[in-house]
Amino acid sequence: MSVLRGNAIFGQSGGPTAVINASAAGVIETALRQTGIIDKVYGAAHGIVGILNEVFYDMGQEDPQELLYLRTTPSSALGSCRYKLADPKKDDTDYLRLLEVFKKYNIRYFFYNGGNDSMDTCSKVSNYMREHGYECRVMGVPKTIDNDLYGTDHCPGFASAAKYIATATMEVYLDSRVYDTGMITVLEIMGRNAGWLAAATALASYKGYGPDLIYLPEVPFDLDRMVEDVSRIYKQTGKVIVAVSEGVRTPAGRYIPELIGTPKVDAFGHKQMGGAAAILAEYLADRIDTKIRAIEFSLLQRCAAHCASAIDVEEAYLAGKTAVEEAVSGTTDYMVGFERLPGSEYGIKTILIPLQDVANAEHLVPREWINAEGNFVNQEYIDYALPLISEESVTVKEDGLPRFARLRKVLATR
Amino acid sequence: MSVLRGNAIFGQSGGPTAVINASAAGVIETALRQTGIIDKVYGAAHGIVGILNEVFYDMGQEDPQELLYLRTTPSSALGSCRYKLADPKKDDTDYLRLLEVFKKYNIRYFFYNGGNDSMDTCSKVSNYMREHGYECRVMGVPKTIDNDLYGTDHCPGFASAAKYIATATMEVYLDSRVYDTGMITVLEIMGRNAGWLAAATALASYKGYGPDLIYLPEVPFDLDRMVEDVSRIYKQTGKVIVAVSEGVRTPAGRYIPELIGTPKVDAFGHKQMGGAAAILAEYLADRIDTKIRAIEFSLLQRCAAHCASAIDVEEAYLAGKTAVEEAVSGTTDYMVGFERLPGSEYGIKTILIPLQDVANAEHLVPREWINAEGNFVNQEYIDYALPLISEESVTVKEDGLPRFARLRKVLATR
Repeated sequence: MSVLRGNAIFGQSGGPTAVINASAAGVIETALRQTGIIDKVYGAAHGIVGILNEVFYDMGQEDPQELLYLRTTPSSALGSCRYKLADPKKDDTDYLRLLEVFKKYNIRYFFYNGGNDSMDTCSKVSNYMREHGYECRVMGVPKTIDNDLYGTDHCPGFASAAKYIATATMEVYLDSRVYDTGMITVLEIMGRNAGWLAAATALASYKGYGPDLIYLPEVPFDLDRMVEDVSRIYKQTGKVIVAVSEGVRTPAGRYIPELIGTPKVDAFGHKQMGGAAAILAEYLADRIDTKIRAIEFSLLQRCAAHCASAIDVEEAYLAGKTAVEEAVSGTTDYMVGFERLPGSEYGIKTILIPLQDVANAEHLVPREWINAEGNFVNQEYIDYALPLISEESVTVKEDGLPRFARLRKVLATR
Repeated sequence: MSVLRGNAIFGQSGGPTAVINASAAGVIETALRQTGIIDKVYGAAHGIVGILNEVFYDMGQEDPQELLYLRTTPSSALGSCRYKLADPKKDDTDYLRLLEVFKKYNIRYFFYNGGNDSMDTCSKVSNYMREHGYECRVMGVPKTIDNDLYGTDHCPGFASAAKYIATATMEVYLDSRVYDTGMITVLEIMGRNAGWLAAATALASYKGYGPDLIYLPEVPFDLDRMVEDVSRIYKQTGKVIVAVSEGVRTPAGRYIPELIGTPKVDAFGHKQMGGAAAILAEYLADRIDTKIRAIEFSLLQRCAAHCASAIDVEEAYLAGKTAVEEAVSGTTDYMVGFERLPGSEYGIKTILIPLQDVANAEHLVPREWINAEGNFVNQEYIDYALPLISEESVTVKEDGLPRFARLRKVLATR
């Protein structure tokens, strides 16, 4: 295999996580060490959009200490995007532009951190470069709290969100039980198609402080059945905690906000604020005479670096590092993933999954990990998720508050 | 001073906090050590209600190790209540019953942990016992995330909630800035009359990652002015974070849900679910064409023991311990409070505040700590609050999740 010399660019895409910056640190630190192979390491502002707009930073000019802080800084330090590239056969404008930028900056390594849409982007870019005779190695770094990427045991970002959700749910459980009166609490958790995160509330139940009912998008949602479930438990115990994935929907594809009442639209045509939990809580309040509280974990669940999983931080870093090492060794068109090692002690090894496979698939909670009634998860889920959250990430504090990385973000000279 | 021999009872009242159980541990452990003075230590189930119903636990039968865990277990382990005693001159039913129970169990020490309503309860109970010739010492232990108790520098519960709010706000700040598009985020924070907690978001701003605007109940709320503030900053920067205390209201006393639209009422006459932030976000969405997200910190902010302040945990314990030591030494009818020591290093000493004074007052954020425009706090607030959150509480974990105290709760024999 020939050594490919040139520059590297890295971008972050899609919704941020508590550990996407740990992957960034893994890519950047490792790429900066590839002396004689990789010269400049660029960080794209807002992912692929930053490359198209020729706005990216020279990561070699960052203070190494700040790159250390980056490992425990949540959200997306370089900025993210939700930009989807067109099919190059229909519209190759963006691809022409990318090729132009890659050539201009002699970019020979492209690392992209995101979910399946981002892996699709990677794959399209790589194919285009290859078809146009521009040698370039493209590697995907997985990222998603949704944990829905194909081919990997789990995704960086998931464990930290799951750890926060399980912890906060345990705390809310205690809080919602202090009074000698009835109470129903509806928790809303992220996840449009995959219920991995909503299922993480079961870790709280496993410890004795969690929801009675969990509804995932993997199971067709039946509102009447849910009201029945809640009413039954309420009559038995006077306290119910329900965890609902934001993505639950009827077999006809109707989400909770569409299912209950008329979705409001504002003056600009935006759909109504307010999530599934608030709407469900109102709906339940019309049917069960008790105090009902809706809690939406919202952004808190995906950026809670203060409660991140140490394993998640390490693995996110490892995924970035591995992507660079593999690319330098000649690999291209793969996403780094994890395979869980057999045995009772938790361990993983990195694997490579073709970008194309990841782009076109979705990894959902297996139906057999969900109970027959479709309102809770089985022990298989606990056995899967619990090892991922077993250790705390240690974050640096100043005045008792997190010390986030302060990047210089020196623009690459054109 | 004569030694008063007998039994003690302790109760928790009002909304729970991350550290109310630390005060419980302080009272219980200290009371259990008063050999020859205090015999039995009872824990009332659901505060004063548990005493009235003669449902309380024999705390001497708890495992001392579990009492250690109690220090970092959030919420109210014995159960809380919002029961308000009548004026004894109008209706002395409850007082007669309390006297009966106190006599039956030879209760000579009553420790009550709560806010100003609870101190009012303490005061009334103490007066009644005195008037009826029953010797009993009554001490209040302060508790409230709202931080609104008179006479004390701050209240146990506040610092932990403030620490969580500041931390989560910093994380949300980063998360709400990842895209290259406009975004307005509305944070809703607890506090009906006092803005101490909403102001804690300013600690995040002090670190460079906080709201642009903070609205407290201490300043008359003007909706039009707020929309102006938000629009102005949005035009300048494209990103706005607004922190709103749930208690903000117009000079006429109208809260946000009443101010905007028609408050919905369900089939049972309950007022509509959904807080100020969601309603405000909708209102702003009708006026500013951008993505707007509402985040209600909800119960998460008051029970987040995983992000508690070590100082808060220690001081909450100290307040409970001091209440017992003072009572045994002859003190009655006081609440324990804190006075901050002068000097640059943080320190406090415990003080005693007459129950009657606490019962009838409210400690608000001083107007001069709020800026002239009424939409942010000044450096005085930062100087006040920052030292309180400077250290993390260390909690025991099992499988990476909090290990809460498991009390035996052996019912006192009648």
